[in-house]
Amino acid sequence: MYQAKVYITLKDSILDPQGTAVKGALESLKYQNIPELRIGKYIQLQIDETDLSRAESQLKEMCEKILSNPIIENYRYDLSEG
Amino acid sequence: MYQAKVYITLKDSILDPQGTAVKGALESLKYQNIPELRIGKYIQLQIDETDLSRAESQLKEMCEKILSNPIIENYRYDLSEG
Repeated sequence: MYQAKVYITLKDSILDPQGTAVKGALESLKYQNIPELRIGKYIQLQIDETDLSRAESQLKEMCEKILSNPIIENYRYDLSEG
Repeated sequence: MYQAKVYITLKDSILDPQGTAVKGALESLKYQNIPELRIGKYIQLQIDETDLSRAESQLKEMCEKILSNPIIENYRYDLSEG
């Protein structure tokens, strides 16, 4: 069994309205020293697989096909046994 | 200036319908070896502050008041200068 953590972020060129809204909320609540804030996704999953390289290639495939939208998002992941 | 990364996850006792939907989508696309998948948020922000301990206490306060909902979510963070 492998534990994977996937971090999905919007590409730099893509506007982040959710992040802008949260930044605005922080500003209105006295936190005016936040020049940038962007919101992405953090996905934790288990992969029932015995071989690390097979688990990794499956994880990449899932990231590219389903978990992220490669047109507007980047992804990276941590994969560990356990 | 400090760079913060905040990881927000649903507490274990809280249902995650978004994660369940993605798990179902994976299953229907031949990935049947994913026993668990949960989706959280990954927030990257900058804090314009010179003192590490002040930056950290501000970050905690923002996490508890705005970035997470402490009733249903946990948070953790990485904070580094840069």
